[in-house]
Amino acid sequence: MGEVGTSAPPVRRSRDVPLLVERARQGDPRAVARLITLVESGDEVLPQVAAALAPYTGRAQVVGLTGSPGVGKSTTTNELVRALRARGHRVGVLAVDPSSPFTGGAILGDRVRMQDHATDPGVYIRSMSSRGHLGGLSAATPAAVRVLEGAGCDVVLVETVGVGQAEVEVASLADTTLVLLAPGMGDAIQAVKAGILEIADIFVVNKADRDGADATVRDIQGMIALGERGPGQWRPQVVRAVAARGEGIDDVVAAIDKHRRWLDDHDELRRRREARAAAEVEAIALGVLRGRIGSLRDGTALPGLAARVADGTLDPYAAAEELLAGLG
Amino acid sequence: MGEVGTSAPPVRRSRDVPLLVERARQGDPRAVARLITLVESGDEVLPQVAAALAPYTGRAQVVGLTGSPGVGKSTTTNELVRALRARGHRVGVLAVDPSSPFTGGAILGDRVRMQDHATDPGVYIRSMSSRGHLGGLSAATPAAVRVLEGAGCDVVLVETVGVGQAEVEVASLADTTLVLLAPGMGDAIQAVKAGILEIADIFVVNKADRDGADATVRDIQGMIALGERGPGQWRPQVVRAVAARGEGIDDVVAAIDKHRRWLDDHDELRRRREARAAAEVEAIALGVLRGRIGSLRDGTALPGLAARVADGTLDPYAAAEELLAGLG
Repeated sequence: MGEVGTSAPPVRRSRDVPLLVERARQGDPRAVARLITLVESGDEVLPQVAAALAPYTGRAQVVGLTGSPGVGKSTTTNELVRALRARGHRVGVLAVDPSSPFTGGAILGDRVRMQDHATDPGVYIRSMSSRGHLGGLSAATPAAVRVLEGAGCDVVLVETVGVGQAEVEVASLADTTLVLLAPGMGDAIQAVKAGILEIADIFVVNKADRDGADATVRDIQGMIALGERGPGQWRPQVVRAVAARGEGIDDVVAAIDKHRRWLDDHDELRRRREARAAAEVEAIALGVLRGRIGSLRDGTALPGLAARVADGTLDPYAAAEELLAGLG
Repeated sequence: MGEVGTSAPPVRRSRDVPLLVERARQGDPRAVARLITLVESGDEVLPQVAAALAPYTGRAQVVGLTGSPGVGKSTTTNELVRALRARGHRVGVLAVDPSSPFTGGAILGDRVRMQDHATDPGVYIRSMSSRGHLGGLSAATPAAVRVLEGAGCDVVLVETVGVGQAEVEVASLADTTLVLLAPGMGDAIQAVKAGILEIADIFVVNKADRDGADATVRDIQGMIALGERGPGQWRPQVVRAVAARGEGIDDVVAAIDKHRRWLDDHDELRRRREARAAAEVEAIALGVLRGRIGSLRDGTALPGLAARVADGTLDPYAAAEELLAGLG
């Protein structure tokens, strides 16, 4: 149904949750929107939502897209949605903005282009930021994926901005990760620096009609050739595209399919999904512990120790030990 | 002394620590290198190093630099080092690469340009990645800053790649944070998306001789004008530079000085440093807790729960609760 709003009010009573999940299951976009808002804001009914959605876990193929600003992620996502819809898939899009811990909400500018799909009932599009979520996006993103799986999506695209660690972590939560590059942006070198060679299953050289596209493809292929890879390991694919004209998108989809078959053939899908679940569970647990640390001595323990560390009378390890002793 | 190597062997015996700290205090670059390696790798003698360095906490002015790939961070850092040296400051540079959790080490490509300062005994330059550090870069970066403070640096520049959350967190550890932009890279919009308006004390529009520089300056000034700011709050400065020709660097230094005076006048330096210390202590404590979670039932607890979450028979909140119960 296109963009699902971020302005939906939170659910106030936990007895509303079963009904909300049931409505999301039936494809009601407002129920989907509310559930993702709950997930994003870390509402207290979240464990109940998670329990209700658990049975739908793993129903969708999760495809991550990441890359530096300006490489054309939104355009590529838009075209991928079009191609997947043409095959009859129900598609969810999560545009994750891990860089926005401050503003309390993702900015939707880029999403305007996605309005191509605004009237399509087979598409859910949602921007997400970390907001108040206990486990941050490491926990919120898989939870949102589960909402979309519950709502019947066959494919969930998780788009992240940039190549920082947070983005890499989010992208690595996917079954298949696409890394987008564009000619002449120094991305090839940045890609190495960012360690994304290790997480990219498919490199998409977008804007491939521009000068320097051949060099970018060569750089990436050189990096892949140099990368250490055991027998039976996936060799990252390199695909050219001009997403703004829809060119090469079929090749991207074919590469995703090929990777999916490889995952199935190597029992790698299970391994990736268990790693994803482990990261999610750990993030939730650490979020709870962080909350406990923050509440020690009515919230005065950490600031008090920090003041002593800042003035040099206590070292941070000794301070951390005191905190941990306080946790009991 | 220029680039301090990353290849220094770790200290094996804790009785070496006092000697190492003493040698670093006297400006021995190899001792500085070893201590930063200890910090980065999370060596078990780290608490001892921290305790030995605590008295030197807060001696240097910490300046963060961040921005997207390609805006000229290394060149700007290089020119800032030159300008600060000309004033007689001892300068430390930490080039932090939070995006590299996989490769086990930062790539030094960019640093080649910094060899201008390779023979200068008043400059320490070091690339850092998170490696095995318990608290990640949130804990390793301030610890490395403390090493450089102990070694007598008056100014420490902390350079981070990109605009992701990890970089923003590292940059926000500084007393003064510079955000670098370049014309025509869509950075202005990305800056908003990344929430860096909230952390930038000074915007440097680099490559200001290029087309579009005026528009970039206008965009940023527009954003600043729209930003909410109470009375007595710092209004971010916008400075133009062409770092590759050394132009505008004096203006950048003047803006840093102005911000420092403002920090002093508003008791904001203490507040920022206490916040930095709190983040550091919390990160160390959470790192310890993460280690405990990972060791539960000889390391089988989390993977076992994750497998049940992945197959949909357990929800992640219930799994996290089991983990926390295991911690006792």
